[in-house]
Amino acid sequence: MNKFITLASVLVAALAMPAQAQFAKPEDAVKYRKASFTVLGSHFGRLAAMANGRAPYDAKAASENADVIATVAKLPWAAFGEGTDKGETRAKHEIWTEAGKFKDAADKSQAELAKVVAAARSGSLDALKAAVGPAGASCKACHDNFRKD
Amino acid sequence: MNKFITLASVLVAALAMPAQAQFAKPEDAVKYRKASFTVLGSHFGRLAAMANGRAPYDAKAASENADVIATVAKLPWAAFGEGTDKGETRAKHEIWTEAGKFKDAADKSQAELAKVVAAARSGSLDALKAAVGPAGASCKACHDNFRKD
Repeated sequence: MNKFITLASVLVAALAMPAQAQFAKPEDAVKYRKASFTVLGSHFGRLAAMANGRAPYDAKAASENADVIATVAKLPWAAFGEGTDKGETRAKHEIWTEAGKFKDAADKSQAELAKVVAAARSGSLDALKAAVGPAGASCKACHDNFRKD
Repeated sequence: MNKFITLASVLVAALAMPAQAQFAKPEDAVKYRKASFTVLGSHFGRLAAMANGRAPYDAKAASENADVIATVAKLPWAAFGEGTDKGETRAKHEIWTEAGKFKDAADKSQAELAKVVAAARSGSLDALKAAVGPAGASCKACHDNFRKD
């Protein structure tokens, strides 16, 4: 019976908050999402520097940065679960009170980043230049609306 | 002439410190390496939980965690360049004064993590169990020797 209750609790918890269940404590989720945004921002910044001429274009490096972005851009979103609005975070309450809008903004960023990834892998600097601007704007829009200064 | 000097400077800088050049300031490198270790540790922890029976084994999730680890385990090492021994870091000076030993420990961790990645992708819980222990030990060995408490 105890075993059944334990299993049932685990299942209920997993269904109720599949992402949150990956973190032992809310502050772990906060630390994780900030970390994944830091890595994402760093590699996006390297591509933006190539696109803007602040760094020399290097097709191989661009493709490697794309690989990191393709993996890391998926990560932070699962770490905005319940209870993660407190502590060392610049997350605005609107993330939870206007969850639909936040999801749209997050989806938009991911869609634009997917275009950056494809462009960086294509070996075309022109394609990269075309993709970086809209992606950066989508990051900024989400920051402006959902992140405290 | 100016253009030539600029290009030459960029080339010299790139050759002198290829990794460091990715970061505008040493503190950016420190923040980046901590962030990549945080993401790495989180996903390794999820596989370790499956291997140790603290979480149910899920072959698909294991493989997804492996994809993140395969990408992220490569990242932090380039961010231990000159000048990154200061600020908000627990890095011990031995990282730079015993650079050979640090490289060996880092290489060992990456080799063990590569085995974890292969095991997690194989769909075999037994393979995962076999790989997680030595990888965790290699992480710990590096932390014990090169990270302040």
